[in-house]
Amino acid sequence: MPHIPVSQVQHSKRSLRELLRPVTLVHASRLSRQLGASVVIASETFQHTGSFKFRAACNVVLRAPNRRILAASSGNFGQALAYACLLLNKSCVVVMPDNSAQVKIAAVREYGGNVDVIDIRTKSRKGRVEELARKDPDVYVASAYDDPLVIEGNATLGQELAALDQSFDFIIAPVGGGGLTAGLIQGLRAAGNTTLVMGVEPLLANDAARSLAAGRIIVNDTEPQTIADGVRTLSLGEHNWRVLREGLAGIVEVTEEQIKVSIRLLFSLANLKAEPTGALSVAALLARPELFRDRSVCCVVSGGNVDPEVFRSLLEG
Amino acid sequence: MPHIPVSQVQHSKRSLRELLRPVTLVHASRLSRQLGASVVIASETFQHTGSFKFRAACNVVLRAPNRRILAASSGNFGQALAYACLLLNKSCVVVMPDNSAQVKIAAVREYGGNVDVIDIRTKSRKGRVEELARKDPDVYVASAYDDPLVIEGNATLGQELAALDQSFDFIIAPVGGGGLTAGLIQGLRAAGNTTLVMGVEPLLANDAARSLAAGRIIVNDTEPQTIADGVRTLSLGEHNWRVLREGLAGIVEVTEEQIKVSIRLLFSLANLKAEPTGALSVAALLARPELFRDRSVCCVVSGGNVDPEVFRSLLEG
Repeated sequence: MPHIPVSQVQHSKRSLRELLRPVTLVHASRLSRQLGASVVIASETFQHTGSFKFRAACNVVLRAPNRRILAASSGNFGQALAYACLLLNKSCVVVMPDNSAQVKIAAVREYGGNVDVIDIRTKSRKGRVEELARKDPDVYVASAYDDPLVIEGNATLGQELAALDQSFDFIIAPVGGGGLTAGLIQGLRAAGNTTLVMGVEPLLANDAARSLAAGRIIVNDTEPQTIADGVRTLSLGEHNWRVLREGLAGIVEVTEEQIKVSIRLLFSLANLKAEPTGALSVAALLARPELFRDRSVCCVVSGGNVDPEVFRSLLEG
Repeated sequence: MPHIPVSQVQHSKRSLRELLRPVTLVHASRLSRQLGASVVIASETFQHTGSFKFRAACNVVLRAPNRRILAASSGNFGQALAYACLLLNKSCVVVMPDNSAQVKIAAVREYGGNVDVIDIRTKSRKGRVEELARKDPDVYVASAYDDPLVIEGNATLGQELAALDQSFDFIIAPVGGGGLTAGLIQGLRAAGNTTLVMGVEPLLANDAARSLAAGRIIVNDTEPQTIADGVRTLSLGEHNWRVLREGLAGIVEVTEEQIKVSIRLLFSLANLKAEPTGALSVAALLARPELFRDRSVCCVVSGGNVDPEVFRSLLEG
């Protein structure tokens, strides 16, 4: 990975903000009544490419001196990277397993990205990325969640929330690799804002909660099969861990059923289409009502990319 | 209906804007590619109570000197009125047919409104409103679409669009009673903005198109049974007609199938939950692609209140 001097990182800060859409705030009065807390939704479902991942991807593409970017992603980061490259006149290859949803492969291609489809029974994503990187020494290998540029990109969301007129008792956001919460903490603290940041993860993928308890990164043996496909990571990223171990107020663990109920609550009471990972922050209020009762809570809905068919079955319950 | 002096109407303009949520703008790049035009969505799905109706309802409650408001509504205006009364410490009665969706009756009650359920086989909504008004001479009878206060409330949306950095070739919005388009035209023109405002209505409920062609208001014999339940009005309002007959650039008529396809496009390509009436503006681009090709278009998505069950069947196609 090429070294990027801090001065250069600082220098182009304004350009990144210009390329992003500001977060969409929804003051959810019916949801608040239902959940017994004052809830403001900070939705990234209308961010470019439909998730917060564009913040990080765009920062990576902007800052990496390379013209070509390489990454493995079966989800939102791939789309975000492809669109960021399109905007910034660079090119990318996204390694995707052959069992990825066709709509996701199609979306990366629609944004102009090159898709490298692999049979994961014969080759790992990591192995394939390394293979491609050896063939092209000038390519920048981007991680979706373990890169200081990722934290810095996501920090723009913390800066936006810090700049609001309103203050919160808690900001809640999903934890997979930890890039979003690390970015939130970094962005808020840089702006002098001390609001507590609470992570949330599925009980089925609770490696971050176990890591915090153990004081070191705990790695899942296999990819956790939660419906929240955005947090099916094996472990926290090293860079994120250094921010989260001190900076996170805690982690709430939620059941699959609580995630599904939250998708339906967001849809019915706030007119919001959230993907399962995006609904995690609301699920935290269902899982730990005593923590949040009568408090002022900002729930980050991290993304909205979900297939219509999957969404239909989620609405059915 | 009590007379309200214009000076008072002008006077409290600032207060209305403070009570409203600004429109949510979504720059829909994938939708644009699909539709062959540069499309920006102006979504009122996150307006208080989930539709643009709150703009008008709030203005009515704010301006009417009466403490009690009475209206007939089976849809979004009832919810909007109830919530506006809650915010402004007034009370309202909403006359609703007994075949209204239970979720809509429940929503009006949740916002603190009193619901008067009638059997429409034995009594008309209008008849019941007149009956209740006779019993309570101090009540303000509010129309969802035929009242200068409605146009003025909706004009705030035109003002917001006029204040954007961006300009459009067309602003497209649904026409039922005509209050939204009349308000848009009034708000834009008051701000010195000459952008063309195009109406859209279902072919099944095309009384506005027929009215424009005839040069006088044409009334439907019965309530049109389009899936776009927000525009099942019998005719344009008189006050709106005076604005629309000169001010509207035209009306696009769309099929029921184009409305359904538009709901799915908004959901899949822009992460937006729109109600059928809300999807009309996008359906206009499907119906008349030659009018909008390569043009810059602002599609007003008027609301997002639709039952999960109905939405599930719409997603299925």
